[in-house]
Amino acid sequence: MTYNGDLKQQLLHKINTKTKPLGALGMLEEVALQAGLVQDTLSPSINNPHIVVFAGDHGIASTGLVNPYPQAVTAQMVLNFARGGAAINVFCSQHQIQLKVVDAGVNVDFDPSEKIRHLKVAKGTHNYLEAAAMNRQQCKEAIAKGAIIVEEIFNKGCNCIGFGEMGIGNTSAASLIMSAITGIAVADCAGRGTGSNDEQLKIKIATLEQVFDKHQLSRLGNQPLELLTAIGGFEIAMMTGAYCKAAELNMIIVVDGFIATAALMLALQMDTGLLCNCVFAHTSGEQGHEKMLQFLGVKPLLQLNMRLGEGTGAALAIPLLQSAVNFLNEMASFESAGVSSDK
Amino acid sequence: MTYNGDLKQQLLHKINTKTKPLGALGMLEEVALQAGLVQDTLSPSINNPHIVVFAGDHGIASTGLVNPYPQAVTAQMVLNFARGGAAINVFCSQHQIQLKVVDAGVNVDFDPSEKIRHLKVAKGTHNYLEAAAMNRQQCKEAIAKGAIIVEEIFNKGCNCIGFGEMGIGNTSAASLIMSAITGIAVADCAGRGTGSNDEQLKIKIATLEQVFDKHQLSRLGNQPLELLTAIGGFEIAMMTGAYCKAAELNMIIVVDGFIATAALMLALQMDTGLLCNCVFAHTSGEQGHEKMLQFLGVKPLLQLNMRLGEGTGAALAIPLLQSAVNFLNEMASFESAGVSSDK
Repeated sequence: MTYNGDLKQQLLHKINTKTKPLGALGMLEEVALQAGLVQDTLSPSINNPHIVVFAGDHGIASTGLVNPYPQAVTAQMVLNFARGGAAINVFCSQHQIQLKVVDAGVNVDFDPSEKIRHLKVAKGTHNYLEAAAMNRQQCKEAIAKGAIIVEEIFNKGCNCIGFGEMGIGNTSAASLIMSAITGIAVADCAGRGTGSNDEQLKIKIATLEQVFDKHQLSRLGNQPLELLTAIGGFEIAMMTGAYCKAAELNMIIVVDGFIATAALMLALQMDTGLLCNCVFAHTSGEQGHEKMLQFLGVKPLLQLNMRLGEGTGAALAIPLLQSAVNFLNEMASFESAGVSSDK
Repeated sequence: MTYNGDLKQQLLHKINTKTKPLGALGMLEEVALQAGLVQDTLSPSINNPHIVVFAGDHGIASTGLVNPYPQAVTAQMVLNFARGGAAINVFCSQHQIQLKVVDAGVNVDFDPSEKIRHLKVAKGTHNYLEAAAMNRQQCKEAIAKGAIIVEEIFNKGCNCIGFGEMGIGNTSAASLIMSAITGIAVADCAGRGTGSNDEQLKIKIATLEQVFDKHQLSRLGNQPLELLTAIGGFEIAMMTGAYCKAAELNMIIVVDGFIATAALMLALQMDTGLLCNCVFAHTSGEQGHEKMLQFLGVKPLLQLNMRLGEGTGAALAIPLLQSAVNFLNEMASFESAGVSSDK
């Protein structure tokens, strides 16, 4: 999208005539400006915000080479989301954010009665040490389904959306995506994920370096479909499609942590303009995330050393977006409040 | 206060058995632990949170040597708070935080019908270039009144309180307090305040160095009453008393920005234990604040480059405190959710 230059000047004037010193609300002023520009209005709003958690299993996880938790935890946590017991449930409930849980490719058949959106592409990806994680048809299917869920949510009057994920082993896929796109060595992209110790991290890195070479990922840095097909996962592919659709629908997109930003990097290759719609929620404690954010040239709102995924960073940042539009809409101006703006 | 060692272990166990990797909620886990320890419970809560904004005028402001805004803005902004038009009103309203506005020493007689708590000690401090900002009796009166307002709020069932301030010229007093207590040179403590340009900042620093020498502040670094008497202001003294009373009542204290932290440094000299009750809301964009926080050895929750005062940083941090106690109270454990905690 291109911004309306006059609108930008009008928004800056509105921000600068609020009863506060110039710039005193810091990053909230930047978010207020961005929200106004995205929504093409002097009075932006956050309506019916949603978080969508995409869940999928990774074939590599069954090897135990990259993850300290067993693969079964993906499905267990999806049920935990569906039943309200996870961190993302708590934060969404606190802030009146609607939560949708999507089975993108978990290695379990869930009971249809669970509060899960059943969009499974397959029961987990293949182990990419042996073969491609998915085929091209599955990749396209996942991307298309990500777009569908976003469109449904948009049609409920939502204009602000964040994406989270669950998938044992998915920091590995995210590290490989990051390395392929940025050119940063795998060893500098991979981190401890859900809690690898030193020895586990060493094995994880060696495994991922092997995968990187096997699939010649250095050649796929600008081929998002090929990259997804090679190393997955379904939840990342679905999130990629979700980003693109959210931007197409001109929603404000709240970008969560390491895996969510890896998916964003893929989506940006399909639609570079969507960066204008993105507010970055937080810097994850997962070590590669800060480098991703530097690569994108963006600065997130929160630095709480969180590394949980699920969209938890996005959920905690949404109240700050709300504060940004609230000050723009509700604060008095120097003139309306009878406050002197200088001497 | 001293902590209950068993309780600490029990709290850590409760945090660590929630359905998330160890430590994955980062700073929220530290806040949850602290809240439990302060309240001596495994299920801490944030009840009826309040922000109190203390307002006072500074004699130095009438000289124009340290501030780009005229002194009249203090009273104008107090009326803006009372009528709901300021940033702190917007954020408190968003997060259901009760806001109290206190006239600690504004140079105007407010109409008694305004929503202001009238605790005025005097109509502004003396210009400390010429004489002490206040006398010792006034200093004690301000401290006592700060305690009174906190006790009133505590009696309404509030257990979490943040303090903000308004006072044209008060970054100067805060810089002098900081320099006296930390030993850091005045030039490295003083910043742009509400927006001084390079030339104004130069004059501000030269003026404050003169004040520092005139009142021999280097000798008052561990004498909070003398320091307050010499350079004020009434809102800072009242906030100092408020901190001490809040700690005495074992409330969780949310520390705002530069001036609020200067007042805290004075309060800590009266009660070193109160640091256990403090959660630091944000790092202000006012340049000295980060050095203050380093001096105290604390890390705040937010870094949004805000520098507005009024308690705005505290108001934005309170939802994060709420998130911390919510995850502790509401998340499922590995056991209750049937999630494997390791392989």
